[in-house]
Amino acid sequence: MRKGEQTRREIIRKAAPIFNQKGYDGAALSDLMRATGLEKGGIYRHFSSKEALAAEAFDYAWRETFDSRIRDLDSISNTVGRLKQFIANFVERRGVIPGGCPLLNTAIDTDDGNSVLRARARKALRGWRSYLISMIRAGIKARQIRPRIDPKKLATLIIGSLEGAIMLCRLERSEEPLRAVQAHLNNYLDTVVGVPSK
Amino acid sequence: MRKGEQTRREIIRKAAPIFNQKGYDGAALSDLMRATGLEKGGIYRHFSSKEALAAEAFDYAWRETFDSRIRDLDSISNTVGRLKQFIANFVERRGVIPGGCPLLNTAIDTDDGNSVLRARARKALRGWRSYLISMIRAGIKARQIRPRIDPKKLATLIIGSLEGAIMLCRLERSEEPLRAVQAHLNNYLDTVVGVPSK
Repeated sequence: MRKGEQTRREIIRKAAPIFNQKGYDGAALSDLMRATGLEKGGIYRHFSSKEALAAEAFDYAWRETFDSRIRDLDSISNTVGRLKQFIANFVERRGVIPGGCPLLNTAIDTDDGNSVLRARARKALRGWRSYLISMIRAGIKARQIRPRIDPKKLATLIIGSLEGAIMLCRLERSEEPLRAVQAHLNNYLDTVVGVPSK
Repeated sequence: MRKGEQTRREIIRKAAPIFNQKGYDGAALSDLMRATGLEKGGIYRHFSSKEALAAEAFDYAWRETFDSRIRDLDSISNTVGRLKQFIANFVERRGVIPGGCPLLNTAIDTDDGNSVLRARARKALRGWRSYLISMIRAGIKARQIRPRIDPKKLATLIIGSLEGAIMLCRLERSEEPLRAVQAHLNNYLDTVVGVPSK
C-alpha cells in the first residue's frame, strides 16, 4: 500500500469515533487534529472536505459494526437460531466504534441535515435489511420459518426495536432495555416465527 | 403575564424546532436569531447561555409531544385498549415539533456530550416510562392484564420499539416501519399481554 493511502486510512480510522460520538456539527477540526495527530493541512490533503471525511468515516464505522454483528452466524444451520445469534451479537458486541451505533447516530444527526451523510446511512440500512430479509426468505424455503411471516416486516421489527433499545441503554447507562427487547424478540421468534421442530 | 415572560416563552417556542432539527451543536446563533426575529442581545437577555435555552426548549418540545401522545386516553376503560390508543397516537400525531421525537434526538445528541441536556432527556424518559408502568399496573389490578407481565419490561419494549421505528421512518421518509411495529405491538398486547374477555 502506498504511504499516502495508508495515512488516508489511518485518518478515517481515527476520525470515525469522533464523528460517532460528537456528530457531524459537533466534531471540531481541533478534535480531528488531536485524534489524528495531524495539522489541518495534513488531514485535508487527503479529503476534499469535512463532509467527504465524515462520509468515509461513517462507511468505515458501519462496516466494522456490521461485521461484528454478523460474525459466527454461518455455522448455525437453523434460521431462527441464526436470527437469535444475530440479536445476541447486536446486544453483546457493542462499542466496536465508541459512541453507540453509527447508523442510529448518523440517521438522527442527518435526518434534517447533511444529505451526503444521510444517503450513506440509508445505504447502510438497506444493506442490513436486505441481509436479514435474505436470511428470513431462505428460512421460509427451508421450512424453518412459517410461510405467513413477511420477511420485510420481520426485518424492520428486529432492526427498529434493537436500535430503539440502544438509545434507551445509552441514555440510562443500563443494559436492561436491550435485554428486555432481546428476550421479547427471542420469544417471538420461538413461538410465532419459527416452525416448531417435530 | 409580564411582557418579559411573554418574550421568554416566545423565544423558547421558536427555538424548540431549531434545536430539534439541528441538534445542540448544529443550532447556530444565526438560526436562533432568524427564528425568533431577535438580535443576540435580545435572546440572551432572557437566558444565561445557549445551554440554558436549549434545556428550556427541550422541556417545552417534550411537553408538547408527550401531551399529544396521551390525549384521548382517559375515555378508554380497558388497559389494552388504552395502550393501543397510546401507540396509535404515537404513530399518527407526529410533527408536533418539527424534526422528529425530541427525546430520541436529544438522547442521541447528548449521550456522549452535554450533561445538562442529557439529564433533561433522562427525566423525560423516566416520566414517560412511569406513566406507562402505572397504566400497566392498574391494568393488572383490574384483571385486564395478565399478572405475569412485567410492567417495566413492557413499558421499555413499547418505548424502545416505537422510538427505533421513528428513526427508520425518518431515514427512509416512509410510514412503513412505524406501521409494522404498531401491528406487532397491537398483536402482542391482544394475544400475550391482555386477559381475554369472557
